[in-house]
Amino acid sequence: MTTPTRRELANAIRFLAIDAVDAAKSGHPGMPMGMADIAEVLWNDHLSHNPANPQWLNRDRFVLSNGHGSMLHYALLHLSGYDLPLDELKNFRQLHSKTAGHPERHETPGVETTTGPLGQGFANAVGFALAERLLAQRYNRPEFAVVDHRTWVFMGDGCLMEGISHEAASLAGTLGLGKLVAFWDNNHISIDGNTDGWFTDDTPARFEAYGWRVIRDVDGHDADAISRAIQAAIAQDDKPVLVCCRTTIGFGSPNRAGKESSHGAPLGKEESDATRAALGWTHGPFEVPQAIRDGWNAVEAGKAREAAWTQMFEAYQARYPDLAAEFLRRSRGALPDGFEAQADAFIEKLQAEGPTIASRKASQMSIEAFAPLLPELIGGSADLAHSNLTLWKGSKSAASTDADANYIYYGVREFGMSAIANGLALHGGFIPFDATFLVFSDYARNAVRMSALIPAHAIHVYTHDSIGLGEDGPTHQPVEHLASLRYIPNNDVWRPCDAVESAVAWKAAILRQDGPSCLVFSRQNLTHQPRAAAQVAAIARGGYVLKDSVGTPEIILIATGSEVGLATEAAEQLGDGVRVVSMPSTDVFDRQDAAYRESVLPTAVRKRVAIEAGVTPFWRAYVGLDGAVIGIDSFGASAPADKLYAYFGITVEKIVEAARAL
Amino acid sequence: MTTPTRRELANAIRFLAIDAVDAAKSGHPGMPMGMADIAEVLWNDHLSHNPANPQWLNRDRFVLSNGHGSMLHYALLHLSGYDLPLDELKNFRQLHSKTAGHPERHETPGVETTTGPLGQGFANAVGFALAERLLAQRYNRPEFAVVDHRTWVFMGDGCLMEGISHEAASLAGTLGLGKLVAFWDNNHISIDGNTDGWFTDDTPARFEAYGWRVIRDVDGHDADAISRAIQAAIAQDDKPVLVCCRTTIGFGSPNRAGKESSHGAPLGKEESDATRAALGWTHGPFEVPQAIRDGWNAVEAGKAREAAWTQMFEAYQARYPDLAAEFLRRSRGALPDGFEAQADAFIEKLQAEGPTIASRKASQMSIEAFAPLLPELIGGSADLAHSNLTLWKGSKSAASTDADANYIYYGVREFGMSAIANGLALHGGFIPFDATFLVFSDYARNAVRMSALIPAHAIHVYTHDSIGLGEDGPTHQPVEHLASLRYIPNNDVWRPCDAVESAVAWKAAILRQDGPSCLVFSRQNLTHQPRAAAQVAAIARGGYVLKDSVGTPEIILIATGSEVGLATEAAEQLGDGVRVVSMPSTDVFDRQDAAYRESVLPTAVRKRVAIEAGVTPFWRAYVGLDGAVIGIDSFGASAPADKLYAYFGITVEKIVEAARAL
Repeated sequence: MTTPTRRELANAIRFLAIDAVDAAKSGHPGMPMGMADIAEVLWNDHLSHNPANPQWLNRDRFVLSNGHGSMLHYALLHLSGYDLPLDELKNFRQLHSKTAGHPERHETPGVETTTGPLGQGFANAVGFALAERLLAQRYNRPEFAVVDHRTWVFMGDGCLMEGISHEAASLAGTLGLGKLVAFWDNNHISIDGNTDGWFTDDTPARFEAYGWRVIRDVDGHDADAISRAIQAAIAQDDKPVLVCCRTTIGFGSPNRAGKESSHGAPLGKEESDATRAALGWTHGPFEVPQAIRDGWNAVEAGKAREAAWTQMFEAYQARYPDLAAEFLRRSRGALPDGFEAQADAFIEKLQAEGPTIASRKASQMSIEAFAPLLPELIGGSADLAHSNLTLWKGSKSAASTDADANYIYYGVREFGMSAIANGLALHGGFIPFDATFLVFSDYARNAVRMSALIPAHAIHVYTHDSIGLGEDGPTHQPVEHLASLRYIPNNDVWRPCDAVESAVAWKAAILRQDGPSCLVFSRQNLTHQPRAAAQVAAIARGGYVLKDSVGTPEIILIATGSEVGLATEAAEQLGDGVRVVSMPSTDVFDRQDAAYRESVLPTAVRKRVAIEAGVTPFWRAYVGLDGAVIGIDSFGASAPADKLYAYFGITVEKIVEAARAL
Repeated sequence: MTTPTRRELANAIRFLAIDAVDAAKSGHPGMPMGMADIAEVLWNDHLSHNPANPQWLNRDRFVLSNGHGSMLHYALLHLSGYDLPLDELKNFRQLHSKTAGHPERHETPGVETTTGPLGQGFANAVGFALAERLLAQRYNRPEFAVVDHRTWVFMGDGCLMEGISHEAASLAGTLGLGKLVAFWDNNHISIDGNTDGWFTDDTPARFEAYGWRVIRDVDGHDADAISRAIQAAIAQDDKPVLVCCRTTIGFGSPNRAGKESSHGAPLGKEESDATRAALGWTHGPFEVPQAIRDGWNAVEAGKAREAAWTQMFEAYQARYPDLAAEFLRRSRGALPDGFEAQADAFIEKLQAEGPTIASRKASQMSIEAFAPLLPELIGGSADLAHSNLTLWKGSKSAASTDADANYIYYGVREFGMSAIANGLALHGGFIPFDATFLVFSDYARNAVRMSALIPAHAIHVYTHDSIGLGEDGPTHQPVEHLASLRYIPNNDVWRPCDAVESAVAWKAAILRQDGPSCLVFSRQNLTHQPRAAAQVAAIARGGYVLKDSVGTPEIILIATGSEVGLATEAAEQLGDGVRVVSMPSTDVFDRQDAAYRESVLPTAVRKRVAIEAGVTPFWRAYVGLDGAVIGIDSFGASAPADKLYAYFGITVEKIVEAARAL
């Protein structure tokens, strides 16, 4: 074989995808076959990366938002020289392989984010591009563009139909994220067939309406046309760019090209053979000729790229040692020296001062205390800054060109917000927090799940956490949300009972690197609770004895957030035999060793009452069949908060009554 | 006072809103003050309704998607003559009033849907407009336009930022819903302030890209301009119409007009007085002069409208008695005579035949059985028809002009889909079902919550219900979803264990009128279970003894869906003392009387094992602290289903082991 043609290079992707899907007997060959030519041009001519070091700080970020086409990504990683051997491709979709059905960041080197839930990869990419811009603003200096990379994203019709594409594209347009380039795989086919019946948007016009630059009508199977489009896309950096590529799904398959039948099922031997014949691919399953491998291999070029950058970075480091150190620290995800001690001092001070304030206000005080220590903290809210109390003295809009820009006015876009926050976290250099009302965590729910699954170090702030928000009524009153968020694996939910617990929750969320935290705060004031130093320290264990019985407890009251105050009052009435456990985070408590858990909730003590202004069955895991739960299992109502607490029977009186009835 | 001016009529809305918010000491005056002039022209000149009968079948539907402006709606209802006396307005946002903080359909006559969660009212309106069109296709005859009304929707910047606005607008454009008119309250202010920093879409261009007709640059405070715009909007019925109204939030308030400070807080006495002075409103709080009341009163006109329609309908009824009867039956929400008996016969037949099939296939068989009996059943899927198995022999695209059109190709738009389904259900005449993978219920989550809260008789079908879906991996494998959906109040979740339970679940979902049902089905085959007739009848109680112990049970195994087969196998190994409870719907079981629940799960029997391929703590409400739960508390993985069940330890062996360890 002489120097392979571009089409031959692209065909290597096609057949790796076809063969892997055939071997797995499941998967999605259509998209890799359709986007192979685009991917070939992008990866071989434009993508700035280093296969030998997937963590190179200044690499371009590549995101496959239409993640079902995962074999495209695996083929690209394998061929260009990442640590993804052919055996992994042969093990596509098998247990413990590095080639999951959809790309998983935690499984596969070179995968920047986990995709599959449509539209979210695109929103992650907006987060990547925003992270790049903000880091560049802060760290670049004349002659030292230490942060200077692009974010490329592939997306299909499905991504574009999803609402999140609107939220993310709209914000990217407003922010003018010029180093973001999205490729639309315009193949006019989705799972149900030809999209004429359900997707007739003028997508180019739509994106122009968002302030994007749009490159229309690119033949996605013509390498020269693709090349010209990419050149045009990167010629200016003022606006994000959508490259609209006309493609054929399942390109090359004689009987399935252009049809939905190529989307999500193996071609099978017969059609694979026919496709080999049609595309002139004479090689067996998983065979890639050396000349084609050579044409793809990007290892040396990648090393050279990183080496050039490293040389520049070393000069930068010499000239701006503090900036360089901070940049590297942030990129490593390490906190500044002394952060924990400073946080603990703040917590101690709060315990001593004992303010009775809304926990959303306590959250803001925590942000005020911590943000000056953490330039990596980047806040934001879905148009509720003054309700969520997410602005602090040092907040500067991310739309500004300020080096300290650290606050994103997300607009009313909860889902896009949290997926963008995931992108900020994954890029590195940032600890993002976002915010909305707890009830509207629903709108962002799958992005929160993705924070936990990827995992991403994102902090989701949710205020107005119960019927305690009052008059806005049941559409705004969370009931099932605490329990539902806690059930997302690897998601730490905190619902603090006062200012001290709020600060501890913030500290925990900042320290926790291997997943998200949801910080849940009240609208209304919460009474400060007295604590000894050991109790203050125990808050971080998720649940602890806030007020103990004299001797072995006869009754244990377990409460969270605004209901802890009710529990301590009830305990006063119930007498000496009562222990009150504050349980700001069941997730964290459940991870404690058995001895600690036993010390807080002794197995033998079965007279237990849980109190939380949310669904009651959740608490059966802590009080069992014989305990009692005070909560709310219906929707709320519109009325002042105190009236609602009385109406729904979440009162000291009811707690006392329930405890006595045990 | 002589005949009031249009501005004076509009000012009555403004001051009722100002006064009610001031009295409640909370609420949102800014939007009613801003949209009062638009509302005045629409309601006094164009809205075809009958205040004396909010249920008149052919009324126009009016939806306030920016529901925080609820006082606008209450003022309109009160002034035009609905049963909403002034005392209710004075009780705005108080417990048991008919004037909740956000409009609640189940509280207030004339409120077509519950709004507040932004963007969803707009999507409901798309459902209303689609319902109207499809009913008209089926029931109208030359000279008898018995179904012929418009759907009007008010929306703000917030609605337009939400992703669901994209999904709903895009589909409405594709379907060409020409009798839908949306008014954009373009006041350039959202809660965080001037929208320049986060919302710079060219909204008119965006909607044109969806195939809407757009009427630009209407002065929302000029009644003549509004009138002309509405005339233009209704001049053609080929496309949905967006009327872009420039308005001033808090119009009339000297110090807050045009500012976010008017959005969500009372004006207070001083500013209310200043606004009275500025607008020349000389009347006290809640005072509306008779001349202005007369100008608003629509009772007689409404009665005349309905009377004219009734006369036409009676002639139609005489000419097309069957059509008229079916139309009235559907509009009442009554099922056809004999439906239950036919459904029971189908269930009995399934029990006798005993097919071992995937429950998603059993779901399709149920649809095949029931849909021919129910012209009101309207299906759809978010681009997963062939995976969800939601198409049936009688399916005809809702994009067609066919009288039997009954299937919506929703595209990849889960949130929009479920909110549109809510609109179809609320309009009357339809029982909608929609479908996606269970994991993507997340995308639609708040619309499912709204189905339960409003309530709407919607059926949400979710297939691929666990790690049993296999190779697609953790992004596609629900773990926490069953528990989370069950915790939504008033939502019935069913997870059937075989074809018979699947049919019973479908029947229950069709019969249940006062809320939604989520029907959760497997991708993989499920073994048919033997049952006596009484057991078949007991399925409808949500949980029942599927296989009983000899004598009092020593151990109870409780399982759902695909895990029921494992439980019965384990019971065989464990011996005679074991009872197996199949629990397809915990929600329904929990509603049964105490005696029945005790008969299934006797309090005294504490050796209990729950088995479900989902999060385990949920089941503590049924097995207590002393039982065991076999499930999965982490994310899944990408591998064939049988490998995953073994890897995560959801096996007969583990059940036996857990039971023996009790």
